[in-house]
Amino acid sequence: MKIIELNQIKKIMASIDVIPCIEQAFVAYSKGDAVMPSVGELIFTHPPGDVHIKYGYIRGGDYYVIKVASGFYENAKMDLPVNNGLMLLADQKTGVFKAILLDEGYLTQLRTAAAGAIAAKYLAPRVVHHIGIVGTGEQARLQLFYLRHVVKCKKIMVWGRDDNKLLQFKNEEMFKGLEIEVTKDISEMAFCCNLIVTATPASSPLLFAKDIQPGTHITAIGADSPHKQELHQDVFAKADIVAVDSVLQCIERGDVAHAVRDDVIKQENLIELGSIIDGKHIGRANDAQITVADLTGLAVQDLQIAKAVLNAVS
Amino acid sequence: MKIIELNQIKKIMASIDVIPCIEQAFVAYSKGDAVMPSVGELIFTHPPGDVHIKYGYIRGGDYYVIKVASGFYENAKMDLPVNNGLMLLADQKTGVFKAILLDEGYLTQLRTAAAGAIAAKYLAPRVVHHIGIVGTGEQARLQLFYLRHVVKCKKIMVWGRDDNKLLQFKNEEMFKGLEIEVTKDISEMAFCCNLIVTATPASSPLLFAKDIQPGTHITAIGADSPHKQELHQDVFAKADIVAVDSVLQCIERGDVAHAVRDDVIKQENLIELGSIIDGKHIGRANDAQITVADLTGLAVQDLQIAKAVLNAVS
Repeated sequence: MKIIELNQIKKIMASIDVIPCIEQAFVAYSKGDAVMPSVGELIFTHPPGDVHIKYGYIRGGDYYVIKVASGFYENAKMDLPVNNGLMLLADQKTGVFKAILLDEGYLTQLRTAAAGAIAAKYLAPRVVHHIGIVGTGEQARLQLFYLRHVVKCKKIMVWGRDDNKLLQFKNEEMFKGLEIEVTKDISEMAFCCNLIVTATPASSPLLFAKDIQPGTHITAIGADSPHKQELHQDVFAKADIVAVDSVLQCIERGDVAHAVRDDVIKQENLIELGSIIDGKHIGRANDAQITVADLTGLAVQDLQIAKAVLNAVS
Repeated sequence: MKIIELNQIKKIMASIDVIPCIEQAFVAYSKGDAVMPSVGELIFTHPPGDVHIKYGYIRGGDYYVIKVASGFYENAKMDLPVNNGLMLLADQKTGVFKAILLDEGYLTQLRTAAAGAIAAKYLAPRVVHHIGIVGTGEQARLQLFYLRHVVKCKKIMVWGRDDNKLLQFKNEEMFKGLEIEVTKDISEMAFCCNLIVTATPASSPLLFAKDIQPGTHITAIGADSPHKQELHQDVFAKADIVAVDSVLQCIERGDVAHAVRDDVIKQENLIELGSIIDGKHIGRANDAQITVADLTGLAVQDLQIAKAVLNAVS
């Protein structure tokens, strides 16, 4: 069995094309080729934290995966990273463990950011004039990084609550050749941008239907637990297309969970991203539509990215 | 973070008193001090296999645990062990991983066997004249090994389906100073023995009420999934006391699940082993009672045994 440390994983990932790798995961899942039980969850209160355990396999494949990812939100006070995690790969035919990837949550961050780029690739309007980023954390930066693989736009508006974090974000990203504006007014951001990514751990809605302009695509990344929410239910009522990574997982723990529960949208109208990638659904039909992608993060994404790392060292 | 290999774990376990360690786990759980969500499960069909993910923590403790244990039943054909697994310990306040125990399922086997001994310690009749072991596998041997810590009886009758395995069991255990009889007639075994442990992966009942004599205690180890069953529902109807490691887990995946579903016994009449250890319930009241303990294996047992290993190397 191989034990692969974070520094080695980072080197490997520099030469892996993550977007097609994660697209394959979505397609396999939406074709029904994956076995992926409900997410395991441990909640801590003193101090607050959560651990997600995502696990599954693709039938006929080599491995099954178990991925652990945690968020302990007061770690920053102790100069510890908020996120942590690891991935296990075992032989799907014998149960023999093949690899432990000590990624400390890094691969989860990457596959999540790649999923955001995939959502934009298939759902964003043809011309993106401004990209709106909601949040100033690590995932917000990574979303922007991967979006650049699929969208040419260099005009970015970032929303956050903290002046220092907004300034730091601006200073860091400006050096990558981007035009960065910052705002603490989310309505202003939504008014200016036709591709918006939300990447916060918010537990009450940040974006409302009244903020959203025709022709906008929104990818909601942050909500992956029943108590989290970034988009108000009325955003879904206004949307022409609502895509999800997994219908079953999103109605349990995504932003759409709130909208489906309140009967604002119907479960049967949700379209899986894998079906759009695979051409079974057309996705965006014109540049006036409002589209939303609600992503909760799938075990098959973890499986695909972990396999890519293991294959690179084997 | 410490990575602890199987050979090191085996050395450490030789000097750890597992029974009190696991008793503490049961007491903490039954007091309501544990957070222990439903067991995660992956099922494989080609070839058949199952993976259980058990996870949780004791409030106010140092760690949370995630334990993976798999059984791939055709591995023996390839000279591979059927069982595999590992345990993860992480800081309950920060999520930082502290240890990976590469125990290959060994610690799961030990804590399961220790639980069997604990059930016998609190529920077996005062004088055990014959011990009946149902099954000839590794867990059957370990049950016998740990029972010897709490019961003096050296007369053993083993039931199995395979002559070679029965002979092998007899030959191996005889050298430990035990009198071993073997049988392929489970009714004969039940007639002769007043302490019976079932440790098979059976998916249809092996023991029936008509087989069970007054004054017998039975510990059912094998059934830990909804599709597994060793004791027929009517055994529970005949029992005076039905103990479980966890009411919630056993009504989902223990032998009692079948009996509760068929309304043979009521959920509210199940008594947790931790409550008996803790003195909240008296357990066996006289030597004529029939008692049953249904054990499915708890994440808190995994937590306790993993902590004991980590403390020994720290």
